[in-house]
Formats: sequence, C-alpha cells, structure tokens
Amino acid sequence: MAQKPSIPKGTRDFLPADVARRSYVIDIIKTQFERFGFLPIETPAMEKSATLQGKYGEEGDRLMFNILNSGEKVKKADVDALAKNNLGRFTQSISEKALRYDLTVPFARFVVQHQNELAFPFKRYQVQTVWRADRPQRGRFQEFTQCDADVVGAVSPVLEAECIQLFDAVFSELHLKDATIRINHRGILSGIATYLGAPERITDFTVALDKLDKIGASGVFDELRQKGFDDDSLSKLSPLLALSGNIDTQLDTLESILSDQPAALEGITHLRDVLRFVSPLHVSNLAFDLTLARGLNYYTGIIFEIAPPKSVAMGSIGAGGRYDDLTALFGLKDMHGLGISFGLDRLCMVLEELDLYPKTVQQSVDIVVLHFGDIYLHDLVPYISKWRASGLRVFTYPTDHKLKKQMQFANQSNAPWTLFYGEEEQKEGFLSIKNMVDGTMTKIKLDAFDASKFMS
Amino acid sequence: MAQKPSIPKGTRDFLPADVARRSYVIDIIKTQFERFGFLPIETPAMEKSATLQGKYGEEGDRLMFNILNSGEKVKKADVDALAKNNLGRFTQSISEKALRYDLTVPFARFVVQHQNELAFPFKRYQVQTVWRADRPQRGRFQEFTQCDADVVGAVSPVLEAECIQLFDAVFSELHLKDATIRINHRGILSGIATYLGAPERITDFTVALDKLDKIGASGVFDELRQKGFDDDSLSKLSPLLALSGNIDTQLDTLESILSDQPAALEGITHLRDVLRFVSPLHVSNLAFDLTLARGLNYYTGIIFEIAPPKSVAMGSIGAGGRYDDLTALFGLKDMHGLGISFGLDRLCMVLEELDLYPKTVQQSVDIVVLHFGDIYLHDLVPYISKWRASGLRVFTYPTDHKLKKQMQFANQSNAPWTLFYGEEEQKEGFLSIKNMVDGTMTKIKLDAFDASKFMS
Repeated sequence: MAQKPSIPKGTRDFLPADVARRSYVIDIIKTQFERFGFLPIETPAMEKSATLQGKYGEEGDRLMFNILNSGEKVKKADVDALAKNNLGRFTQSISEKALRYDLTVPFARFVVQHQNELAFPFKRYQVQTVWRADRPQRGRFQEFTQCDADVVGAVSPVLEAECIQLFDAVFSELHLKDATIRINHRGILSGIATYLGAPERITDFTVALDKLDKIGASGVFDELRQKGFDDDSLSKLSPLLALSGNIDTQLDTLESILSDQPAALEGITHLRDVLRFVSPLHVSNLAFDLTLARGLNYYTGIIFEIAPPKSVAMGSIGAGGRYDDLTALFGLKDMHGLGISFGLDRLCMVLEELDLYPKTVQQSVDIVVLHFGDIYLHDLVPYISKWRASGLRVFTYPTDHKLKKQMQFANQSNAPWTLFYGEEEQKEGFLSIKNMVDGTMTKIKLDAFDASKFMS
Repeated sequence: MAQKPSIPKGTRDFLPADVARRSYVIDIIKTQFERFGFLPIETPAMEKSATLQGKYGEEGDRLMFNILNSGEKVKKADVDALAKNNLGRFTQSISEKALRYDLTVPFARFVVQHQNELAFPFKRYQVQTVWRADRPQRGRFQEFTQCDADVVGAVSPVLEAECIQLFDAVFSELHLKDATIRINHRGILSGIATYLGAPERITDFTVALDKLDKIGASGVFDELRQKGFDDDSLSKLSPLLALSGNIDTQLDTLESILSDQPAALEGITHLRDVLRFVSPLHVSNLAFDLTLARGLNYYTGIIFEIAPPKSVAMGSIGAGGRYDDLTALFGLKDMHGLGISFGLDRLCMVLEELDLYPKTVQQSVDIVVLHFGDIYLHDLVPYISKWRASGLRVFTYPTDHKLKKQMQFANQSNAPWTLFYGEEEQKEGFLSIKNMVDGTMTKIKLDAFDASKFMS
C-alpha cells in the first residue's frame, strides 16, 4: 500500500516561494556579515555526544536529538540501565553522536580544534540548521536556522559598536524599520544586585526584573518580596525602574545612583565607550534596557536583544552579548568572545506579517517559452541558450499541450513574461512577448531580443 | 578536565577558505539551475523512518542514520527483539526518524504531499546535505552535499536536451573543460540483452559491461561466460563493443545491428530526438557510452553520467536519468520524472586538484583597517560605515596592538589592501593604503576614497 506522506512534527518543507524568501533574508544577513569582516565557517550537523552533552544544562541534554549507532553497534545496548530507568546511561550505550543544538558550542569546539589554522582576532559567521526536540508552537520548530556572527580573541568597544551597526544595517536592508536594538550590561545588573544588598541573588533579581513589561513595577516588587528582598531594597529599586530620557541621560542617572558600585560603573563606562563609536552613525531604535537579562549564565559584559516591531506579537528576533572563556570547555583559556545571532525563522515570519518582501523575490522565472511544436522550438533553442548565458531565467514549456493549459501554467508560474513563437512568428522571424502583469503583447525581431530587459 | 575536541569520522569542518570555494561552486550550480527554470525547494534533514526505509535496498537501510526517540519514549525499547538479534525491530522500537539519505526520495514524498500546491510540469532544484553511515574514504563522506535538479510531470526530448545543456553550462562556468557527459539509454541495454538471447539477465549483462574500461573486452567476455552467456551470444556482442565514430555514426551502426529489437530502436530514436535539440549548441565532450548502466533499477529511459577529466583519479562527479513512477511509492501514479545531480564534494576536489578556483574566491575581506588608537578610529567610523554600505568588506582591527602584530594579521587575512590612519594621516586628512600584492603605498584624501575601486 502506498503511504500517505508526511514529515516529522516541528519540521517543514519549504516550497519555492518559501526558499526564495528565506534566501532573500539569508543573502542580506550574509552580505552584511561579510562587510563587517566576518568569515564563513560550517560545522557538521552531527557532533560527538561528548562535545554537546552538559553544555546546555539539563534541558538541553533532554531536548537533544541523539543519533543511534549504526549496524551491529546497537547490540551494546545497556539493557540493565534501561531496566533501572537510567535513560541517560541507556542512551549513551547506543548513541555516540547528536545533532547540532546551537552554533555556539560547535564554534567553540571549532576554534580550539583549528586554533593553529586561524588568524586571531577571528571573526566568523555561520548560517546553519539546528535541531531541538522542543514542543513545536508558533515561531518554534524542531528544525530551524540560526545566523551567528562571533569574534573571538579580542576585547574592544569597537567590536560591540560594530555589532550594533551590523544589526542596524541588516534591519535597514530588510526595510524593517521598527525593530529595537536593546542593550544592557552584566556589570550594571551585578552592581544593582549588590546595591540592593543581595549580590548572591542576582538571578532571582533579574528573573523578576525581566517581567517588568508584562507585570509592571508592582508585580516585580511582589515577586522580589516573595524572594526575600526587603522593603528597603525595593525602595532603592524604584528610581532605577523609572529611568527616562535618552541613553546618555539614563546612564548619567544610573551612574549617580550606583556611584558606590564598581561593577556597575565599569559597565556604564564600557557602554559609553561603545556609544562613542556608534553615536555619529544615527542608529535608530537603539535603547538601553535595564530589564534585559538574557543568558546571564554565560554573558559577562554587554547584552543585546532585538525586539520585533510592536505590531508583531513575537519574541526576540536577534540577540547576543560578550562572553568569556567559552572555549575553556575544550581546553583553550582566555579566549574572549562577542557574538550576535539572528533567528532566521522568526525574522521571516515578521517580514511576512509586515508584508516586507520585495515583489521580485516571488519571481523565480523571468520568462515562460510556450511550446507550439518541436519544429518551432528547434529554431529557438540556440537563442534561448544565449539568453540563459546572459542571465535570463527561461522555463521552456516541454510539450505542445493546448495553449490554454500552457497559459494556465505561465500564470501559475508567476513569471512576468511569456514568449510565443509559432507558425506566424516563424514565417516573419519575430517573437511575440506577453507582459503578464498588464496583458500587453509586443513583437520583437528574433535577433533584436535583449535578454537583460526581461530580467527581474 | 577539558576535552580534546574532535568531530565524528566521515564529517568535516569547513574553514573560511573551504566555505568560500564551496559557495563559489554552489552559486554557479544554483544560478544555472535557475536559468533553466528550476525552482528551489528544501526538505527537512529528518524524515519519518517509514518514508525512507525500504527505498534504497538492504544496503540503504543499513547505512541510514536513525534518530533516537526523545525522552521517555526510549523506554519502549523492544528488549526482546534485541535478545533475539532482530536489530531492525529493536531499532524501530526506539527510532521513528532518520536522516535524509538522498534528495530523490524526499522529493518524491514532497511532490505527493504538496501536489495541489505545485504547477506541473514541476522543475525543482535542491542543494542539501545527505548522510550515510558508509565507510569513509577519499571522496566519500558520511555527510555530503548533493545538488539535484529534477522535472516531474512531463515527457519530452527537450527536457533531456536541457539536462545536457545544463551540465555543459555548469562545467563551462567552472572552467572545467574536460569533463565528459556520457549518455546511454535503458532501451538500448534492454534491446541488447534480448539480442543476446538473455532479456532476463540484463543486470548480469550490464554489470559486466560496466567493467569494460577496467578489464577490457576479454575480461567482460570471461565474466559473461561465467554468468552463462554462450559463445554465440558473445560473438554477437563483439561488434557492439567496437562501436566507433561520432554519436550519430554510433547510433546508425547500433540501429543496423539491433534492427529487430523494438526497445533498442525506441531508445535510439529518442536519443536522436534529444541530439536534434543539442547539436546546434556545440556541446563539447558529449559521448555515447554503451557501457553506461547506472541505476538500472530505477532509470527507464536516458541515462547520464559525468566523468571527471582523465587526469583526475575520481569516480563520477554527476549523474542522472529518466525514471517513471517514483512517486507511486507515495500513492501518486504516472508522474514521469527526469533528474540530474552534481556531487558537490567530489566536484570541489576536482577543481582543487586542477587548480581551477579563481583567486578572488580566496579573498573574503577587501581591506584591513589598522588600529592606531581609538582617537583615530573615531574619525574613520562614519567613513567605514559608508564604505561598507556601498559593498566594501572591511575588517577593522579592534585593538591598538603593535603594528608588527597587526601587519602579520593583515598578511594572514589574505586581504588585498591594508589601510593606515594614524597621527600623520589625521593631521593632513588622508589615508595611507598599502597594496598587499605588490607592496606599494598610496595616499588618498579621506573624502576621495572610492570604495568600489577596492572591492574584489
């Protein structure tokens, strides 16, 4: 019996129009990565389990796709571990490889493994698929694409400034006007935690703070009270949550409040150094956001997060930050890093929702050549060959089906032009070309056809 | 303890120079696919096991990478099957998905699943990774990339002719002059088998014939004799193996010998129809090859295979053919297909060996901006931003390391230009630019720098 075909949950087929839209976005991101001096690398889809396990916390280990060992090797299945419900050990006995879970850990592994082949500071970009056995929902897939750019081996505010410019350049190219580049600094968050008298509870503090948007200041206070912050601490927090004005003003206010907190002052100074490089460039929608506290377990300096335009209900479409010693996991110390990432799938959904794809992206064929019989096509073949060589994308309808059927295809194909060459055209040596947008017909001498005029 | 990092056998990391070279080849292939009217699709890396199992013969099932079910689901492991050494059933009990093994079966699944969203004839291309648990060796990896173009839903010699043109166009763009496009036809092979009195032994016959290159005519005869072909049959085969002259001559000879074999005559007529479209185009290195017998279990008409230039010891770098009813596996009948495929990894190795990559492919950065201190860089940032916006790929050295160290980096980066802007340059408002190829220095006024002149 024939199978009714389907694909695994959380994965997607991409039809030609989807691929065209995704390629449009990827090309823009890659082009900007390259203009900022990042070089492309690629790593295998499968990594050794030892490379990935334990790098993403308990949740990561659970959501990783493990590859079953091949052939006879599955005989080594640890049945005892299975019986004892030790699923981790059982899995290890039959699986030595797992699918890429993100691009950061493979990059760290790559840098250590190839350190003698790379010139530092090393700026790399990587646009590849990652896999997570997560419950699928809107904007969350089991197979999705990350676009990462990282620089390792240098510390300088120039680098952070370039990340901000890069975000801005990509959004500008995509005509995505109202994405907000939010920045914060780990040092400022540490400083505040200390200022509130609870340096060791920075995580509790930032988890609550992160909800300010959703539950408001009173909600944040309630949560912090439950976590054991006293009223004295909370009263100190109030003015921090009320920061206003432009970034410079906010940092000034913050500096005066946190004047006794060295970590915070260092963070403020660093952000100012970064802004000094950025401010002449009129980057729009750059915002300081004290509540931004993502990835605190690995970010050590600046933190970035990109919010989509407010009209789109969607999580962040980009993120990043400075981290230290990521490569230490693989034996290479003191390799400072800074990275940013675009979530391709969400970014595409935002562009779709805001109808920001240029029309030409939908056109994958420039001209459909209709088929009136092989005797006519024989004349045309050498011309079509020349047109293609000069860049025209030509779909030659392969059979002499009824004209109606061929025209139906031409319409569906979304090609802007259709070419007719039949008995009359052959006799007089010209081409009839239909503009599929306005329906007009033009006649052009066979030798006078200029392919470049018909390219999208 | 830090782990010594490595990757699974048969997989590869691609360094920037590798990615640049691969992208160069992929871009050429994709561009040609599009000029011939093929549209891009992508399918998930993971397919349901039911989609892939049984489609590639026993070897395929054995070499497929299976994905372990996530979380609690592994508890369903069929320990009984394991004890009975029924590894297939055991695997099925803990795995429902497998990695893509080729692009053809996923494409067939895709066509059936999306048949109502596609316009037929449907020409699709697909450039994606596939995985096979094969023993790695030169030119054979566990993770590799295929570049496929297929048309389904039409039968016409125009399509075969376009495949030949497409092969030729790609090799021409790659400056790969001596790749041979070998063609044959399943009908001719069937006709010969019948002519030799053994229509049911076409496989034995073609397997032996396929070795002509390696073992010579006498070797082929020996093998056929062992397989039970009698001397009468073999004497009939001799003139077929001695075919010579151009394709037309060879087909004429074949026609006179096989004049009683309808399948062969049909194949010959079809090849002539195809050649009628191709011959005005001066396709170089097109050869008829009677011994070409690949994929006989699915090809039903023309068969293509691309041999690399003779100076390179490597298997085929491309292949293809006509097949019928591939989609019937998934419940859609009478969907005729024709497809070709480029093996990216081998193609890259051939180009490497023949030193055919253009020099600019190695240059991923156009200019390295040296760092003499933030006060100088502050001046430059708005300019660099403008240059990047116009397309220049600029690596800003992030820190004011010693000049020697920075120059060492600039050399390693392979960028053709290095830019100096320090105390002297700032005072007089110019840039010093070093040509890294010939070592010459030029001074250019800051405002007169034309980025387009420095792009590779």
